[in-house]
Amino acid sequence: MNGMAPRRRGRPARKAADTGPSAQQKILDAARTEFAERGYDKTSIRGIAKAAGVDPALVHHYFGTKDEVFAAAIEVSFEPALMVPALLAGGPDGIGERLARYFIGVWENPVTRAPLLAVIRSALTHEAAAKVLRTFVLRRLLERVAEDLDVPNPTFRAELAASHMLGIAFLRYVIKAEPLASADTEEIITMVAPTLQRYLTEA
Amino acid sequence: MNGMAPRRRGRPARKAADTGPSAQQKILDAARTEFAERGYDKTSIRGIAKAAGVDPALVHHYFGTKDEVFAAAIEVSFEPALMVPALLAGGPDGIGERLARYFIGVWENPVTRAPLLAVIRSALTHEAAAKVLRTFVLRRLLERVAEDLDVPNPTFRAELAASHMLGIAFLRYVIKAEPLASADTEEIITMVAPTLQRYLTEA
Repeated sequence: MNGMAPRRRGRPARKAADTGPSAQQKILDAARTEFAERGYDKTSIRGIAKAAGVDPALVHHYFGTKDEVFAAAIEVSFEPALMVPALLAGGPDGIGERLARYFIGVWENPVTRAPLLAVIRSALTHEAAAKVLRTFVLRRLLERVAEDLDVPNPTFRAELAASHMLGIAFLRYVIKAEPLASADTEEIITMVAPTLQRYLTEA
Repeated sequence: MNGMAPRRRGRPARKAADTGPSAQQKILDAARTEFAERGYDKTSIRGIAKAAGVDPALVHHYFGTKDEVFAAAIEVSFEPALMVPALLAGGPDGIGERLARYFIGVWENPVTRAPLLAVIRSALTHEAAAKVLRTFVLRRLLERVAEDLDVPNPTFRAELAASHMLGIAFLRYVIKAEPLASADTEEIITMVAPTLQRYLTEA
């Protein structure tokens, strides 16, 4: 009733935007955008925090170092890669075509393509980014694929398959070399599927 | 006999270093180094001239714009590619293995690898560089290869072959993904040669 100061209860109120998964997601989204637009070198924790509208300390709290933020950010970019084990689960028949079709589909879609391109650019221009990509891609994707393959040297085989698809992505979407850049995706799949099939299933 | 000023004869003397092919070569060497070390964006005609020890006007005189200097510089980097028509001249039998072996050889050698990596990095990070690479690679290499192929859509087939080898280069030498990075080159050639053979010779 009189002009008493309000009593403090417990810890100071936090802004709702600074807590919980939505802050983590905002940081990840901001990180992906920053890395994509500025490149690995010019991206900083401070820049990511500013883009996310949070304190830099929160970025450190949730993710750690710049490399750890990068690893988390590319993990999201590689979400489409999480589908790959499901594609393998269909068994060896036709796996070459299923994988070729899926990979091309991811790259044909500008929404899923852009973060992958950004990751590849970073890896090509900064050794720390290449190291993160190597560890991530190997551990999360290629070795997982290799588990399901019944061939000698399965990780080597998976890498040969991945290298072919990566190279197609580079010539088609980055260099934009014709006629590959404008080719119907079915033409590419038709040519490449038997290659992947051999690498992934033939001893 | 007396203190007469020496008579001028004709045009002022030029420094020997500013004339003839050796100046052109110095400019090309400097351009390759500048592009490789600074990247496409941060390289300038002035910077190239300084590194070559010549006047910027001489760079313009011999080569033209920055893009034209870049095109000339990467042409030299792709000198190994000039061997490819000779490899094709051996006829279709075993062409897959010859090309796989040659490509791997160029990338295994750090001297020939470094400028190629620099070109790819430039193309990935600067659209103008991608455009130069696209024009150059297509016109000078892939279409030349396609002339010697007896398959439908020969340029498309040549690009598929090139994409596979580029992807291997990326995973082995840039990302350094194991076991591909440490694999014996004969293992890679053995797996990949039949792929290139099919792309380049089978209708």
